[in-house]
Parts: sequence; C-alpha cells; structure tokens
Amino acid sequence: MNTQQDSMVHALQWTDAGLRVLDQRRLPEEVVFALCSDAPAVAEAIRTMRVRGAPAIGIAAAFGVVLSVREWRRRDLDRWRERVAEDLQLLAESRPTAVNLFWALERMQQELDRHADDPLPEIVALAERIHRDDIAANRKMGDLGAALLGNSKGVLTHCNAGALATGGYGTALGVIRSAWKKGLDNVYATETRPWLQGARLTVWELQQDGIASTLIADSSAAYLMKQGRIDWLIVGADRIAVNGDVANKIGTYSLAVLAGQHGVKLMVVAPTSTIDWRMPDGSQIEIEQREAAELLPQCYNNPDSLVQAWNPVFDVTPAALITAIVTERGVILNPEEQGIKSLQQ
Amino acid sequence: MNTQQDSMVHALQWTDAGLRVLDQRRLPEEVVFALCSDAPAVAEAIRTMRVRGAPAIGIAAAFGVVLSVREWRRRDLDRWRERVAEDLQLLAESRPTAVNLFWALERMQQELDRHADDPLPEIVALAERIHRDDIAANRKMGDLGAALLGNSKGVLTHCNAGALATGGYGTALGVIRSAWKKGLDNVYATETRPWLQGARLTVWELQQDGIASTLIADSSAAYLMKQGRIDWLIVGADRIAVNGDVANKIGTYSLAVLAGQHGVKLMVVAPTSTIDWRMPDGSQIEIEQREAAELLPQCYNNPDSLVQAWNPVFDVTPAALITAIVTERGVILNPEEQGIKSLQQ
Repeated sequence: MNTQQDSMVHALQWTDAGLRVLDQRRLPEEVVFALCSDAPAVAEAIRTMRVRGAPAIGIAAAFGVVLSVREWRRRDLDRWRERVAEDLQLLAESRPTAVNLFWALERMQQELDRHADDPLPEIVALAERIHRDDIAANRKMGDLGAALLGNSKGVLTHCNAGALATGGYGTALGVIRSAWKKGLDNVYATETRPWLQGARLTVWELQQDGIASTLIADSSAAYLMKQGRIDWLIVGADRIAVNGDVANKIGTYSLAVLAGQHGVKLMVVAPTSTIDWRMPDGSQIEIEQREAAELLPQCYNNPDSLVQAWNPVFDVTPAALITAIVTERGVILNPEEQGIKSLQQ
Repeated sequence: MNTQQDSMVHALQWTDAGLRVLDQRRLPEEVVFALCSDAPAVAEAIRTMRVRGAPAIGIAAAFGVVLSVREWRRRDLDRWRERVAEDLQLLAESRPTAVNLFWALERMQQELDRHADDPLPEIVALAERIHRDDIAANRKMGDLGAALLGNSKGVLTHCNAGALATGGYGTALGVIRSAWKKGLDNVYATETRPWLQGARLTVWELQQDGIASTLIADSSAAYLMKQGRIDWLIVGADRIAVNGDVANKIGTYSLAVLAGQHGVKLMVVAPTSTIDWRMPDGSQIEIEQREAAELLPQCYNNPDSLVQAWNPVFDVTPAALITAIVTERGVILNPEEQGIKSLQQ
C-alpha cells in the first residue's frame, strides 16, 4: 500500500531518534514537528494535545512504551521493568476517554510479559504493526464507508477524525477521502469548539489532499440540515460500548439528535481498537472535563469569579441515533438492534 | 423607574455631543465608549457591531436620525430633507435582519413628515421615548417571563439579549434578571460562535449585576439538556413573523430542536417592535451572511482557497418549537396555534 498516494498528511513518524509528532496546536499557521525521545515526552504530547484523536493516541502511546524500554534497559538494567511500569502508568493517565490508549498499552504490556530477556526488537515491531494496521484499517473503512454513501452529494463531519487523528488516512475523513475520489461534491466541517479541531485541522488536512471543504459554526449545522444540503453526518469515535453507544467529541450527540430530526443519516467510523468490550453501554464512559480557560475570557479565570465554565470535551451518542458503525471488520447497520457483538473475534 | 437599580449596564447614552455607544467589540477586556456625532457614524457602529442586538439597533438608528436632522438643518437648510433622506437610507442598509431598525426609522420618518418647520425638538423627544419605552417594555417582559419560569432552577440563554442589546435591562436577560431576584439558581450561557456574544457580552453583563453564570460551548447544550439541568431555553429575537416564526441568532433553531427533544421549554422574549406585521411566516425573512473571515483561519481568506466558509448569522425557528413568546403587551402561549395577531393594536 502506498500511503503517500493516499494522503500527504503523516502526523506520527517513528525514527531512530524517537517519535516525531506533528504539533497539532500550531496548525494551520505552522507545520512543526516535535521529537519525543522518551515516554514522559509522549505522555506530555498527548496530555497537551500535540497529538490527539483516539487511534493516534494509541499509536503514540505504543511508541512511548518502546522509548521507555529502550531507555530503561540502557540506564537501569536491574530494575528496568519497574521503571517501564511507571512510564506505562504515566502514559495511561494522559487522557481518560479514548479507549485506544488503554488497548495499545495492554497489547504492549502483553508483549513485554512474553519476553524474559530483551524484548526490544519485538516491541518495536509491535508498535510499528499497530501503526501499520491502523492505516490499513482506515483504508478498509474508507472503502466500506464510501460504498454506504452511494450517490450522496453532501456530508458533514465534526471534529477531526482524519490522518491527523490516526496512523494515517483517517476514519471519518478516510471515508470522505475515498468518497471524494468517487465524486462526492460537498464536504462541510464544523469548527468544533472549544479546540477548533475542524477549523484548524480538518479543513487543513483536506486541503493538503486537494479536497475542497466548507467550514461552518457548530451551531449552524441544524440550519444547514434543514436546507437539505446534508445526506450523511460522518464522525469518528473515542470509545464504543458493546451496545453501540459512542463517546466522541462534544457536540456529536447534539449533531446526532439534529440529524435524526432532519432525515440525515449518521455514520460512525472507527477501528475495532476503539471498542471497549468491558463497557456494556455508554452510561459509564468517563467523560473528560478540560480547563475552563478553554472557554472563558482570561479576566474570569479565577475560582472566585461569578463567571464559571462547564467544559466536557466528549459526549455519548446512543446507538439508537446511529445509522451505521463502520469498522475494519465490517459494517454494523442499525446498531441499536443488535449492538456490535458480531465484531468480536 | 430607576434603571440604575435594575442594571449597571447602559450601552447607549444620548448626550448633547451625540450618541455614546459602549463598544461591544472590545468587551470584556475593555469598557470603552465611542461617540457617534453624525448618522454615518451610527450606521458604521451598527454595521461593525459596536452596537448590536435588535432593539439597541433600532434605538441607535433613531438617534442617528436626530443627529442627521440636527446636522443638515445647520449645514444645508434648503435641502436638509434630501440629506436626511440619504442618511435614513444609509441607516436602513446597516444590517438586514433585525426589523426593529426599520420600525424605528419608519417612526422617525413619520414624525419628520408631520412637521413643516423645525422638527428637531419633537424628533429628539421621539428618539428618547423609543429608548425609554424599550426599557419599560423590558421591565414588563422581565416580570411576565419570570412568572412563567415558576420554580425553574436552570435556564440556558443564547447570544446576548441583554441590556447590551436593548435600551437597557434586556429581553431574555431581563427575564433572567427578574427571575434571579426571585431565586433562580443556575444560568447557563452559550459562547455563541462566531462572534462570541455569550462569552464576551452575556456573562460580562450578568457579572456587572451580581448574577452568577456558567459558560458552555454551543455544542454542549444538548448534553447539558440530557442531564436534566435545564428547564427553559430563553432567547431574544431579531424578527418575529405573524405566524410566530422567529428569526434570531444562528444556533437558536438548533437549540430549539434540541430543547424539543429533551423536554426543555423555549421562551422567546422580544418587544412588539420586533414583530414584522408584513411577514406572514419566517420563510421570507432575509438572513444576513457575514464574512467568511469570522470563521476561517487567516491563511484561507482568499477566493481561490479550497477552504471556504458558510456564515449565516441568523436562523429561523418555527413557531411549533416555541412554548411562549413574551412581549410587553402580554404572553402568547403555543404560538403555533394562533400566531401572534392578538398582539396587534
């Protein structure tokens, strides 16, 4: 597979010096890579959202484990497993909602446990495989999702579920990339407050690959739908429960309700690494609250202010509002009826 | 009536030197007044949103006519009516959606037509009456709306329909002011992209009067409603059609649909000057589109960019989604059933 041909955007690059991450806080004004040469640097990049997007967080964390093993086998050969365990803990605490993080760390841990002696070659190989598999999964989902779209002419996406949020190619934007090649005309992207992933990342990423897009304020989506300009709402996911409930960027639930009221279909596109098999439904998914400062003008940023902010950055969309969940293992239509158990291997 | 006691916020102040307007583009960081000493300055203040909010635009325009008459009777006594007509045209073209602008200009025009000789004393008196009546209307609506709220504990407002948007006290925020005195606990305000009227104006204005508020991203309103934390959504209006359809800030329609799906009631608060008696329903209301630059990162601000923006700044909420329209002449419950004709005098 030639990923160069599929997208010009490569946000995570593994090198001998460490993990190079495209700093997503500085797009679109500046295209700057930061080098993470140890696990705390990777955790910090995730926590501060240099790296964001559920699959990308998982991949970055996997390489964080590689960096940790490499460092501590060199610096503290007697106690390296303890030190690596500390780094794993640090990586696990970097963001709470996306399950891909825990999924990747668990796979890395299992691989570590399998090797009594030097595990480095195998865990490098595993991290690279996690990365490669994610890109391949995105390609597969792109094909499956584009087929579902049929002759739809207008789609809306929320947040950034693109090459920037994954190993490459993207989930929701992977479907849009594949559909664009088949004649999709109108791609709308929400700004996605408070972090503006849509305004700063999604339209930039699409532009890199020659795909035209139209940016809208989050709150104008309903008015756009009412005009009949949208056939499908296409989003990624941060965690999928077994009954098909989906945690994703704040505002997804809002758009899902609005889609349902306007005859717009809702496609969730996510690799199976996003499924939390221990979570029966969405009600127990931990929803990250970020700092009030992301919303508040600076003058209110003190605890005694009469002005406070409520800043949940994810919400949960019930399966009943979802038309299709697209994964690399296949498509679940009407997840409310059957949940997603049929995807379990 | 002691307006000082009702609110500390006075955004429009008529003085001998001209109309002093609180520059709403610079709040909350700076509290700066600009002096408009002729009609073009008032039109510019409206166009650039130093002054915004449907009732405030009407009042400012009325004083713009006063400034025009005063200037042209001094500078060009032979042709002053022609010159004033030009200024009236300029004022009428400053913003398209709020009907209060045209309502105020029409009243001023009628007063001008009534006087063969010097109309200045009467038109000053009329502009001052329009201002005073608006404040009194807001007080009345505050009482009526607060009575409707009953023991509601949580309300959400969108955009800024406050003292800053009116002659004083506010429409939606007038209801919240009155309800706050009677024990209302939780006031939520949306940011209101793209201009951030909620983040920059509403929470500032409430803070001036000692009212606590919580700011949320526009797209988190649905999740807030789902948690049962909101009883009423309370908004102002820019134009109300005879069947009860309401044009208001972009996102109002979105919130109205979401409110309907979550058992949240919707109160529209507006003086009868906001009613367009020539508009049978909302479908023909002109919706202002503002510059793409309000949404787009600067790098995309060129016509050849693959990235464009769609930036309607109002939308229309059908009467069917509205629980109550509160005016100074009374409350219309379930406007879908009867429209608002009973308010006509």
